[in-house]
Amino acid sequence: MQLKFRGIYPYLVTPIRSDGSVNEQVLSALVEHLIQSGVHGLTALGSTGEFAYLNRSQRRTVVQTVARAAHGRVPVIAGVCHAATSEAACQAREYEALGAAGVLAIMDTYFPVDDSQVIAYFKGIAQSVSCPVVLYTNPNFSRVDLSVGALEKLCELPNILYLKDASGRTGRLLSIMNRLGNRISIFSASADVPLFVMMMGGVGWMAGPACLIPRQSVRLYELAVQRKWDEAMALQRVLWEVNRVFKRYNLAACIKAGLKLQGFDVGDPVAPLSPLQAEAFEEIRTVLEHVENAAER
Amino acid sequence: MQLKFRGIYPYLVTPIRSDGSVNEQVLSALVEHLIQSGVHGLTALGSTGEFAYLNRSQRRTVVQTVARAAHGRVPVIAGVCHAATSEAACQAREYEALGAAGVLAIMDTYFPVDDSQVIAYFKGIAQSVSCPVVLYTNPNFSRVDLSVGALEKLCELPNILYLKDASGRTGRLLSIMNRLGNRISIFSASADVPLFVMMMGGVGWMAGPACLIPRQSVRLYELAVQRKWDEAMALQRVLWEVNRVFKRYNLAACIKAGLKLQGFDVGDPVAPLSPLQAEAFEEIRTVLEHVENAAER
Amino acid sequence: MQLKFRGIYPYLVTPIRSDGSVNEQVLSALVEHLIQSGVHGLTALGSTGEFAYLNRSQRRTVVQTVARAAHGRVPVIAGVCHAATSEAACQAREYEALGAAGVLAIMDTYFPVDDSQVIAYFKGIAQSVSCPVVLYTNPNFSRVDLSVGALEKLCELPNILYLKDASGRTGRLLSIMNRLGNRISIFSASADVPLFVMMMGGVGWMAGPACLIPRQSVRLYELAVQRKWDEAMALQRVLWEVNRVFKRYNLAACIKAGLKLQGFDVGDPVAPLSPLQAEAFEEIRTVLEHVENAAER
Amino acid sequence: MQLKFRGIYPYLVTPIRSDGSVNEQVLSALVEHLIQSGVHGLTALGSTGEFAYLNRSQRRTVVQTVARAAHGRVPVIAGVCHAATSEAACQAREYEALGAAGVLAIMDTYFPVDDSQVIAYFKGIAQSVSCPVVLYTNPNFSRVDLSVGALEKLCELPNILYLKDASGRTGRLLSIMNRLGNRISIFSASADVPLFVMMMGGVGWMAGPACLIPRQSVRLYELAVQRKWDEAMALQRVLWEVNRVFKRYNLAACIKAGLKLQGFDVGDPVAPLSPLQAEAFEEIRTVLEHVENAAER
Repeated sequence: MQLKFRGIYPYLVTPIRSDGSVNEQVLSALVEHLIQSGVHGLTALGSTGEFAYLNRSQRRTVVQTVARAAHGRVPVIAGVCHAATSEAACQAREYEALGAAGVLAIMDTYFPVDDSQVIAYFKGIAQSVSCPVVLYTNPNFSRVDLSVGALEKLCELPNILYLKDASGRTGRLLSIMNRLGNRISIFSASADVPLFVMMMGGVGWMAGPACLIPRQSVRLYELAVQRKWDEAMALQRVLWEVNRVFKRYNLAACIKAGLKLQGFDVGDPVAPLSPLQAEAFEEIRTVLEHVENAAER
Repeated sequence: MQLKFRGIYPYLVTPIRSDGSVNEQVLSALVEHLIQSGVHGLTALGSTGEFAYLNRSQRRTVVQTVARAAHGRVPVIAGVCHAATSEAACQAREYEALGAAGVLAIMDTYFPVDDSQVIAYFKGIAQSVSCPVVLYTNPNFSRVDLSVGALEKLCELPNILYLKDASGRTGRLLSIMNRLGNRISIFSASADVPLFVMMMGGVGWMAGPACLIPRQSVRLYELAVQRKWDEAMALQRVLWEVNRVFKRYNLAACIKAGLKLQGFDVGDPVAPLSPLQAEAFEEIRTVLEHVENAAER
Repeated sequence: MQLKFRGIYPYLVTPIRSDGSVNEQVLSALVEHLIQSGVHGLTALGSTGEFAYLNRSQRRTVVQTVARAAHGRVPVIAGVCHAATSEAACQAREYEALGAAGVLAIMDTYFPVDDSQVIAYFKGIAQSVSCPVVLYTNPNFSRVDLSVGALEKLCELPNILYLKDASGRTGRLLSIMNRLGNRISIFSASADVPLFVMMMGGVGWMAGPACLIPRQSVRLYELAVQRKWDEAMALQRVLWEVNRVFKRYNLAACIKAGLKLQGFDVGDPVAPLSPLQAEAFEEIRTVLEHVENAAER
Repeated sequence: MQLKFRGIYPYLVTPIRSDGSVNEQVLSALVEHLIQSGVHGLTALGSTGEFAYLNRSQRRTVVQTVARAAHGRVPVIAGVCHAATSEAACQAREYEALGAAGVLAIMDTYFPVDDSQVIAYFKGIAQSVSCPVVLYTNPNFSRVDLSVGALEKLCELPNILYLKDASGRTGRLLSIMNRLGNRISIFSASADVPLFVMMMGGVGWMAGPACLIPRQSVRLYELAVQRKWDEAMALQRVLWEVNRVFKRYNLAACIKAGLKLQGFDVGDPVAPLSPLQAEAFEEIRTVLEHVENAAER
């Protein structure tokens, strides 16, 4: 538990061949490229990784491939998600055994759940592993929200140490910081503006776009660590343009399109998700060039 | 394809033992009881069946058990659900091979999907089986809605023959009836008021509560078939009280509670879903007695 | 209080000249036409009447004009709406003095309100007049919902006698009927399917479309009173097409467009609301002809 | 148009006597107190001012009283809101004549409106006055949202110079800044975290809580102007606690309660809004003391 997660953790896409198999070569190459670009860790099977569209065997292959390619140089965090506690706990144990240094715990549900059920679910995952757990909540895409009260209870578990809150509400994060800031470390989500989260006391940024702009993301983090807020703000304004473009389309499709432009043969999103049209590809090419140039200055 | 689904199709719960295994004996006994009570078919792995909380092997056991117990006396429809087309199609083929006479196709997703993606998903399922497909849409619980336009396209497939629309909006159903009534048959959902759906031209009722009140549900259907609308309305008013109680709690937990009261050892809902409290149990006991007495009159 | 509201109550549009003044001649002619067509009452200043877009003096003119033109032949109900209780109560008193036989009480709010505040508002209106009050709730357009609990409390007032529920949820109406059916009479709203409301025990239909299809609406009501449900259902299916078209556009703009087609110079919706485009006009012309022909058969 | 709005603009409450009349003495005293505390301007008839609950004559009295008491020392901005363009424009002209240096334009509607209607409404207001216009949008409380496209069109008018966006989404603000930052100045709303808005390039903070903590709010603004971000962040964290408490209750009721604690006899919120309970009063007393002490340090 001495391990500390800090900095830029790109959400990896899942490269898939047309026959549905995970492309381990491309995934390994992407991991190598990102580590060379200075990222502080890697997150597999997040939303950008299309976890919801993969079956059990594909998921296992992803975690194993990323852990092997990272080879201990940076921590690998693996996403875990189900509606049933036992299934999620089973995934968590499996991924820890495959080399994950932490799990990102996501909750799915069909029926509405209350705080006690949310707590039971995340507790079940945390107690099934010995590695640190990152709680994830995204009220925009998922049916579950994590109340501040539930979060307070969950912080009592020794290995629930991180939160990735994708609510996009800075006020909510400030409330959590003021109340639980010494008990849980917060990662910004892509939907947010990571600079503000770090300014409030956050410890880093876990996001899909960092797959495409790893150096600039690392630079933003370093400026925040050095408390050079004006410089960081200027960079943040430039980087936001990437997010603005991505918000119009499916995020996984955007990151896959951008990586193709960068030479990684990651394949298409899993059907029925569809690849981007030519026009969107061009928009992504343009914004990536814009960000590239801006960061050089 | 000569098979016609008509009438009352209870959504079966999934009896689970405390060790997590499917209780095949109890499930078979429930199937027997419902067939003896006159239901016209059975639906396994619907929302009441907690499909989202089961793993692949549990789901397979459920379909196999129900098909064996029904033994061809009534059609068995099996719920199929995933975010990826290929996985859902794979489930559909598997369940058809296990004896399902039809599949209830449900779509999950993490990212927002448009009409063309919704169409691709359901088409993928329909083309993977030779049995009839019941489209299911529940905009209240799921992240996907089926537009009337998408529905029109899907009706062109030879084995997409039924719709179960749980939107609860009679206006929407009337629009569908007026436009596609001769191409697709509509089942009412529990959230609706089934009498009105049948009055509009619907062919039956697929719902969790029919597990608990099979005879009364069958009676309602018969009155509708005989066009005895005033009598049917009087019965509907009584039956609605069951739904009214169930709406306050988790539906699967309610049906499991009611079945326990009727002597079926169906176990608790799958964690983190929780069983009902004593007070809710009493409320269910009361409303079931009320309905029992009313139907006797 | 011996007066009983029953049957078809068209929601009158508010004819406005290009200088912003209420066109009293056209409004009077419309009232005359509707009474000749057999409607059982008239509702002024409902949503179709664009009450939210009128000032105090325009509203007063509308109520006075309708009351004078109706001349006691049918009851006139006037819409009352504000966020503050005192202002709404003041409107109610004013409209009763101008000849309204009842008030339709609508609640607006800026801040979220709880049940006790909702009750206080409607109670304040009811206690300020001696005529009957129709409670109105439309959770789709307004920020206020009327819970069944609040409704039960409000029914205790001697002149709160009617409910117009535009939630469009038949289940909610059945719950209200089962619990309060002997204390409050329910009118269907246009968003609903009025036949079902009447079948459940409702007393009529208050709706904008009845301005355009008064005879057919009266016919539907009569079939319901005679409990000729199959015939009523066939007519309802035809009439629904009108609603289906109207749902695509602004309702007030649709009714104004339809009335223009019928020769009433009602002017345009109040800016910034905009009149319908030519294509929508044609769609309305077509559906009105379709309904006209169908009803002749 | 040489006038520039910058800094802290408290949203004034509307002190009301038990007979419903505006308490001009208390309102004048509050204005004096806030100007003495260093605020840069005043906003009357905002949401905290309960504009939706006042009638025309009360609103006029409020604007006149505030303008007289401010006596040109700081700009007074008056809130304007209706569903009809002509009524809103009429209010705007009236308030400018009464001494308002700017108007805060809010749009209400009953029917859904599209971009062209939103543009027409705000344009109508802007063209009716010669003073600057602050556009206001709060998608959480109001039925209207202002798209970035509509905003871009509106910026072309010479006197639409400011935006108060209460969406609470920093990403949306950054998009607006990146696209329209040189054409429109942005004020933070209370629901937001004003420091971040100022860091992005915003020009100030318009909010109800500034009525209660004017000195601390001014201090936050000054730290932002001096680009002392770490100090500003520390103060922001303390001030956020006030917002956190207020979010649990009705905002106008909270500010009125706090002002009573500070000795201003502002009366209760307008019925059916209700005053806070004793417990909430204590919570507000505690958080205000906490903020007072923290700011002294």
